[in-house]
Amino acid sequence: MKRSVNATIITIGDELLIGQVIDTNSAFMARFLNRAGISVIRKLAVSDNAEEIRAAIDREVNGVSVILLTGGLGPTSDDVTRQTLADYFGVKMIEDKGALRNVKRLYDKVYKKPLNPVNLRQAEVPEGCKVIINKRGSAPCMQFEKGRSMIFCLPGVPFEMEGLMPDVITAIRERFQLPKVIHHTIATAGIGESELAAILADFEKEIAPKTSLAYLPGLGILRLRLTSVVTGKEEEEKVNRHARVLKKLAHQYLISSDDTPVEEAVGKLLLKKKKSVATAESCTGGFIASMITSVAGASAYFPGGIVSYSNAVKSGTLGVKTTTLKKHGAVSEEVVKEMLKGVLKKMKSDYGIAVSGIMGPGGGSGQKPVGTVWIAVGSNHRVDTRKLHFRFDRKRNIQSTALRALFMLKLFLENE
Amino acid sequence: MKRSVNATIITIGDELLIGQVIDTNSAFMARFLNRAGISVIRKLAVSDNAEEIRAAIDREVNGVSVILLTGGLGPTSDDVTRQTLADYFGVKMIEDKGALRNVKRLYDKVYKKPLNPVNLRQAEVPEGCKVIINKRGSAPCMQFEKGRSMIFCLPGVPFEMEGLMPDVITAIRERFQLPKVIHHTIATAGIGESELAAILADFEKEIAPKTSLAYLPGLGILRLRLTSVVTGKEEEEKVNRHARVLKKLAHQYLISSDDTPVEEAVGKLLLKKKKSVATAESCTGGFIASMITSVAGASAYFPGGIVSYSNAVKSGTLGVKTTTLKKHGAVSEEVVKEMLKGVLKKMKSDYGIAVSGIMGPGGGSGQKPVGTVWIAVGSNHRVDTRKLHFRFDRKRNIQSTALRALFMLKLFLENE
Repeated sequence: MKRSVNATIITIGDELLIGQVIDTNSAFMARFLNRAGISVIRKLAVSDNAEEIRAAIDREVNGVSVILLTGGLGPTSDDVTRQTLADYFGVKMIEDKGALRNVKRLYDKVYKKPLNPVNLRQAEVPEGCKVIINKRGSAPCMQFEKGRSMIFCLPGVPFEMEGLMPDVITAIRERFQLPKVIHHTIATAGIGESELAAILADFEKEIAPKTSLAYLPGLGILRLRLTSVVTGKEEEEKVNRHARVLKKLAHQYLISSDDTPVEEAVGKLLLKKKKSVATAESCTGGFIASMITSVAGASAYFPGGIVSYSNAVKSGTLGVKTTTLKKHGAVSEEVVKEMLKGVLKKMKSDYGIAVSGIMGPGGGSGQKPVGTVWIAVGSNHRVDTRKLHFRFDRKRNIQSTALRALFMLKLFLENE
Repeated sequence: MKRSVNATIITIGDELLIGQVIDTNSAFMARFLNRAGISVIRKLAVSDNAEEIRAAIDREVNGVSVILLTGGLGPTSDDVTRQTLADYFGVKMIEDKGALRNVKRLYDKVYKKPLNPVNLRQAEVPEGCKVIINKRGSAPCMQFEKGRSMIFCLPGVPFEMEGLMPDVITAIRERFQLPKVIHHTIATAGIGESELAAILADFEKEIAPKTSLAYLPGLGILRLRLTSVVTGKEEEEKVNRHARVLKKLAHQYLISSDDTPVEEAVGKLLLKKKKSVATAESCTGGFIASMITSVAGASAYFPGGIVSYSNAVKSGTLGVKTTTLKKHGAVSEEVVKEMLKGVLKKMKSDYGIAVSGIMGPGGGSGQKPVGTVWIAVGSNHRVDTRKLHFRFDRKRNIQSTALRALFMLKLFLENE
C-alpha cells in the first residue's frame, strides 16, 4: 500500500471552546500517531452538541484513514458523544460485558465506592462497535469503520486517553501498513529565526523536497526540525547525514542535539556520573526544582533546593553576604555565585544551579530592565555564569530562565 | 441585531499537527472572545500548507461572523500564511508603512540588532487589508472582510497574539453588537462526576434550557460551570440566583465559589491580611512555590520555600526529627507537621504549607500506594492536616497535590 496513512483528531467539549481547558490531548495523540508513521492532517475542536459532532465526522469520513474522537464520554447529561455515535451509525445502545466487568472492577478495587445506576451507563456502547477496555477509567474506547476510515472514540480524561493510545495504534497496524517518518530536532539559542534562516537557506534548498526543515521558536529557544518519510535504510542514512550537516551549520548556537526534554537529559547525565544537583532559585520561584523533579526517579540525584525569594532568605538560608546584596543588588553575578556556593554547601550536592532576575511586569529599572536574569551553574571547583535578557511576559520569562539554566547545566556536565 | 456573534479559530502550523507544541493560543483567544460575548463554535488546526489553509477558510467564510487565524507569519520559508491570504483575496503583497516603522523600531530599540532583508519582509501585507500594529513583534495583525465574515490573522507567538486580542475585540465591536454571556464557575473536591450529577439532576432540569450546567473534571477537582446568554438585568439576576442555589446544593464538596486561580486567591487573602506564607515541599518538588510565585507581586507575601526531596534535607534544613522519619516514614502526618513547623521558623513566615507523598510511578507500597499524600497547612497556632489519594500519573499527581494544598490554605485563611 503506497498511499500514506493520515488522520484527523476531533476533540469534543464545550470547555475547549470557551477556553477553560487547554487541549493537551490532541498534542499527545498527534505525537503518538506521528511516531507510528501516521500524519495528522487536521485537528478539530467542537462542542458537546450532536449536530456539530456529526458534521465533524461527516466532513472527515473517507477523506482520511483514521479519525480519532476524544471527549464527551462522561456519564452526565452534558456528555453526548456516545449517543451521537449510536445515532450516526443507526444502531441502539447495548451493554458491553467487558466494559461492565471493568466498571465493576474499578468501583470495587480502585475507587472503593458503591456503584450507582449512572456509573453503570458507562458500560453501554453503540451496538456493533469494537470495544477496547480502558483500564484507567470507566468509559471504554469504541472502534468503528465507515467507508475507508477507521473511527476511534476515546475518553477525554488525559490519563485514560493516554493509556489507550498503544491499543489504538495496534488496531491501526492491523489494517494499514505504516510508513516510517523520521524527525531530527535540535535546539539553538541566541539567534533569531530570520538570521538563522539566512544561514540555512542553501541547506534548505538542498534537502528539499524529500526532507523539510521547520523553525519552532519558543521560550527563548529556537528549535529546528528535519522531517522525512523514508522507505529504506539508504534514505534513512541520508536524513541522518542531513541532520549532522544541520548541527554543524548551527554549531555556534546549538544548545542541544536532540529533542530529549532538558530536565531528562540532565537527569541521565547525573545518574551516569553518580552525582547530584541542588537549586537556589530567586526569580524562578521553584520552577527549576519542579522541572527537575517532574522526572521519575529524580530523588536519586536531587536532594532538594531553596527558593530564596526575599533577600532575607538569600542571606539567612543561603549565606549570601548582605554587603554583596547591597553593593551589587539581588540581580547580579556576585549574588548568584554566592547563592550557588550556599546551596552546594547546604544541600551537600556536587552541582548546583542559582538564578536571580526580574520577571515582571514590575520591578524593572533603567539599568536592570524586566527580563534581566543572572544564572550560575557549577560545582565547588568551577562555575559558569551568564547574564540573559528575556522580553516575554512574567510566566514565559520564568519558563525561559528555567530552560536556559538547565541547558547551561547540561553543557556544563557534558564538558566535565 | 438578534443573531448571535460566533467565531471559528484556525491555528496554523505543522508543529501543532505533529504534537510538538501544545496549542495554548486558541484557549486564550476563546476565553477572550467568550468574555466579549462571542461564542467560539469550532477550532481547527491545519498545517503550514497553502491548500489546507485556503480550504479551512473557505469552509468557515459566511458560516461564522468572525474567523481568527493564528500562526505561520514568521519570515522563513515554512511560513506561508501571509502569501496564502494574498492569493486567496487575489491581491499582491505591499509594504505597509506602519508595519515597517514598527519593524525598524523593534530592531533599533528592543532587539538592538541590525535589520536584514528577511526581517523587512515582515512589513509586507496583502494589499487592501487593514493593518493592526503588533507592538510586541514584527508580524502585524491583518484584518480582512469576506461575505458576512470578518477575518483576522494574528502571529502565532503567544505573547504577541495576546497583546493584539484587545484590538481585535475593538474591531469586532465596531461591526457587531455583542450580547452578554454569563459564566459562574465553582470548584468541588471529594466527589465524582456521576455522584454529583445525581444530586444536581433536578436543579439541571429546572434551569434548562436558558442556562446550562457543565461538569469539568480535572486534577482531583470537579468544576461546575453555569452558562447563560442574558439580555437584561432581570435575566442576569436570575442566573446569579441559580449560582447561589448551586453553591448550596454542592456545599459539602465546595472548595471554591469562583473561578479565580487558587494561587491568586491565596495571594489576595495574604495581601489583605498583611501576612506571609512559606512552603516545605517534598513530593511536589517546588511546584507549589512556583505556583505561588507565578502571581506578579508575590514577593510581598512569599519569602521563600524549601524543597526537601531527600530525608537528609528534611532533617538537616527543616529540622524534622530523624526518629519521626524512622518511626512514621517520610509520608506521614507527623512528618508534614514537623516540616511545617520547620519552614515557619526558617522563613519567619506567618503561614506555611508542607507536603509529602508518593507521586509514582515507583515508590509505592501496600500500605502507602502511589498517589498517597499528606498535606499540612497552618500557622504556629493552628494546623490543618489531610491525607489524600490521587490515582493519576506522576505529573498530574504533583499538580493535583499542589492544587489541593493551595485550596486547603485558602480555606484556612478564609476561616482565620
